[in-house]
Amino acid sequence: MLTISKRGEQMPASPIRKLVPYAEAAKRKGIKVYHLNIGQPDIETPPAILDAVREANIKVLEYSHSAGNESYRRKLVQYYKKAGIDVTHEQILITTGGSEAIMFGFFCCLNPGDEVIIPEPFYANYNGFACAAGINVVPITSTIETGFALPPIEDFEKAITPKTKAIIICSPNNPTGYLYSRAEMEALKEICLKYNLYLFSDEAYREFCYDGEYVSAMHLPGLEKNVVLMDTISKRYSACGARLGAFVTKNKEVYDTAMKFAQARLSPPGLAQIMGEAAVDLPDSYFDEPKAEYLARRDLLVNRLNKMPGVFCPNPGGAFYAIARLPIDDCDKFCQWLLENFSYKDQTVMLAPATGFYGTAGLGTNEVRLAYVLNLDSINAAMDCLEKALEQYPGKVIEKKLRAADAK
Amino acid sequence: MLTISKRGEQMPASPIRKLVPYAEAAKRKGIKVYHLNIGQPDIETPPAILDAVREANIKVLEYSHSAGNESYRRKLVQYYKKAGIDVTHEQILITTGGSEAIMFGFFCCLNPGDEVIIPEPFYANYNGFACAAGINVVPITSTIETGFALPPIEDFEKAITPKTKAIIICSPNNPTGYLYSRAEMEALKEICLKYNLYLFSDEAYREFCYDGEYVSAMHLPGLEKNVVLMDTISKRYSACGARLGAFVTKNKEVYDTAMKFAQARLSPPGLAQIMGEAAVDLPDSYFDEPKAEYLARRDLLVNRLNKMPGVFCPNPGGAFYAIARLPIDDCDKFCQWLLENFSYKDQTVMLAPATGFYGTAGLGTNEVRLAYVLNLDSINAAMDCLEKALEQYPGKVIEKKLRAADAK
Repeated sequence: MLTISKRGEQMPASPIRKLVPYAEAAKRKGIKVYHLNIGQPDIETPPAILDAVREANIKVLEYSHSAGNESYRRKLVQYYKKAGIDVTHEQILITTGGSEAIMFGFFCCLNPGDEVIIPEPFYANYNGFACAAGINVVPITSTIETGFALPPIEDFEKAITPKTKAIIICSPNNPTGYLYSRAEMEALKEICLKYNLYLFSDEAYREFCYDGEYVSAMHLPGLEKNVVLMDTISKRYSACGARLGAFVTKNKEVYDTAMKFAQARLSPPGLAQIMGEAAVDLPDSYFDEPKAEYLARRDLLVNRLNKMPGVFCPNPGGAFYAIARLPIDDCDKFCQWLLENFSYKDQTVMLAPATGFYGTAGLGTNEVRLAYVLNLDSINAAMDCLEKALEQYPGKVIEKKLRAADAK
Repeated sequence: MLTISKRGEQMPASPIRKLVPYAEAAKRKGIKVYHLNIGQPDIETPPAILDAVREANIKVLEYSHSAGNESYRRKLVQYYKKAGIDVTHEQILITTGGSEAIMFGFFCCLNPGDEVIIPEPFYANYNGFACAAGINVVPITSTIETGFALPPIEDFEKAITPKTKAIIICSPNNPTGYLYSRAEMEALKEICLKYNLYLFSDEAYREFCYDGEYVSAMHLPGLEKNVVLMDTISKRYSACGARLGAFVTKNKEVYDTAMKFAQARLSPPGLAQIMGEAAVDLPDSYFDEPKAEYLARRDLLVNRLNKMPGVFCPNPGGAFYAIARLPIDDCDKFCQWLLENFSYKDQTVMLAPATGFYGTAGLGTNEVRLAYVLNLDSINAAMDCLEKALEQYPGKVIEKKLRAADAK
C-alpha cells in the first residue's frame, strides 16, 4: 500500500485556516465577516516598490544568486544599519519569506529529536517547521496576567536538556504583541551563552513598536555566534504575497550551511527582490503613517475590549496583534459559533482561537487572538459584533473580571 | 559548543557552483567564459507575461491561497489539458519553483531512512532535498552507450527493499537530455504498481522534445494514485527567477498532506503567479520558436562534439542538455583546468563535471554535461575552445573512439 510519511501525518493543519469553511458559509448567507483572524494587513503596499518591478528592464528573468542578488543584500546592509544592526552583505541570505529563514535555521542547527524552546503562545507555524525538521518544540508558558512578558528564566533552565539546541523568540510578538525589554533580551542572552544555545530571533514586526524600546537580538554584544535573525518584508511593507525574507547571522559556519540549503532550491523569488531593493530607498518617514495607523487601531481595539464585561486584553507594545481573555467556555467553539450561528446587523467577526498558539494542551481555551489589520471603522464594527456576541453566546462563563490595571 | 546539525554537515554543496570562483578569476584576467555549465537559458522571457505583472492592479500584495490563486490553478487545468493531462484545480498545488514540489514529495511520502530510486546520472539537487528529508538515494546506473536509456527493469527490482517508497524520473532528462519512450514509461508503471511505489515525475522540460513522443507519468492509466508530477515554469517560459512550480497529484491523501506543508509556508510567490497565469494565454505557437532554436543548437553541439577525436555524445531527444564522454583523465580537473589554465583567442568554456550527477562514486569521471543555453555562434565558439583544449590538456587519455553510430 502507498503510505503517507509519519511527519506528513503529524504535520499540523493550520489552526487559523480551519475556520475558513465556516466563514465562507457565512458570506454565502450574505453576512459580512470582519477578518481579525489573520495577519494580512489592509495597508497599501508602497506604490514605489511595485513601480520598481513595473519599470525594471527584464529580458530574461534569470535565477538570482542563491543568497539573493548582491545588489539587494548590499542595500539591506544600509537598512539594517538604520535599525542599529551592523552586518555585511555576506551575512545576509535572502529567503523565500520569513518561513524559509525559519526552516533553514531548524535544518541547519538541529538534528531530528533535538529540542527548541519557545515561549508560548507562539506563531503556530513554528510547529509545522519543527515537524518537517523532526525536532521537538518545548513550550515555556507566558501568561496573560503579565501581558505575555518573558517567562521567568528559571522556567527556561528547568526545561533545558542535553537535546536543547535553540530558543526562538519573536519580538514584537505574534500572537501576543508583546515587546521584549532590554532586560528580558539580556536575560535571554545570558541563558544562551550559559547553555550554548542558538537564539533564533523572528523580527518581522521591527518597525511596529509603540511603547518601549526595540531591542534586536543583534543588539546584544557577545552573542554574535548564537544569533540567527529571521526576517521578512511581509509586514514591514505590507507585501505578504511577495514571499521575501532574510536569514541573517554572523556565525559563518551556520551561514555556510544555510547556503547549501539555499543552493539546492536555486534562488529566492526574482521580482520580489526588485521590490525589496526599492523598499530600502523609501524615505525614513514612510513608516510614520502605517505606524500611527496601527497605534490608533491598537488603542481603539484594546480600549473597546477592556470595556466589555468579563473581557481582559493586555496592552500590546508592538506588532499588530492582541490576545484577549473572554468570558467563554471554549474559544474554538466560540469562534465557530461567531461564524455559524451569530450575526449582528448582518455582520460578524472572525477571530483566531488562542489554543492554536499554545504548545501545552489545555491552555488558551478562553483566549482569542485579534489582528488589528482593518481600519478604525471596521474595528469598531467588529467590536460591536463581539460585544453583542458575548451577550448572546450560550457558552458564556462569568468570571471575576481582570482589568487592564491589574496586569503587571 | 554551538554545533551544526548532521544533515547540515552532510548537505552537499552544489557540484555545479564549486567552479564559480575559477570562472570569476578567468573573467578578471579578461577571458570570455562561455557558460554551458548551467541550465539558465538565454531565451527571452515572453514579454507578455512580464507585461501582465506590469499591468496588474495591485493595491495590497496579499498572501495568496496556500495552494496558489484559484484563478491560476484553473488556468493550469487548461494548460495541462493541452498536454493530454487531465487534472482539476484541486489536484494542483502551486509551489515555489519545482524545487519545493520535490521537497513536498519527499517530506509527504517518505520517512527518514526510506529510499528513493533514481536512474543516474540525475539532477544533483535531488541529493540536497533527500539530505534535508533524511532519506536515502539509491542510484540505478544508465549508461552513455545506450544514450542514457532507462536501465534494465531487473536493476530496479534488485535495488528495491522494504524501505523503497518511490522512484524519481525526469523526462526529458536533466542532465542527459534522454526522453523516455512509451515502453519505458509502461515498464516504470508496472514496477511501481507491483511494489507500491510512488512515481515522482519531474517534467520541467515537457515542451522541449525533439525526437519521439512525449509521455507524461500522468498519461499512464491505472497509476493515478502513485504519480506526483513535479513541474515548473522556469524552463518552459525561460522564467527561472520567477520561482514558480506545481505539485500535481490525483492522490488526495498525498495532496492534502502537501497542503499542510504549503500552509506552514503560507503561500507561493504572488507576482510570479500573475506571470504564470498570463503564460497559459500565450498562443500555442509560442513554443515553436524556442523549440526550433534549441533543436538547431542541439544538432550543432552534438555534431561538433562527435567530430572531435575521442569524444562521444549521444543525441539527446529533449530538454537542453547533453552529456559527452571526453578523452580525459578526470572531468573535475579538466573543467577546472579549462577555467584556470586554458584560453583560446581569450575565450574558454565552462562545463559541468558529470561526476556531480552520479550517485555512485567513480562514475562519470570522463563525462561532462553541456547545457545548450547559448546561441549558435556562442556554441560554435565554445566548441572551438573545447576542441583546442582537448588537444592541449595534459591529462588527455587516448581511448578507442565510440562513434554516435555505435550507440543503441
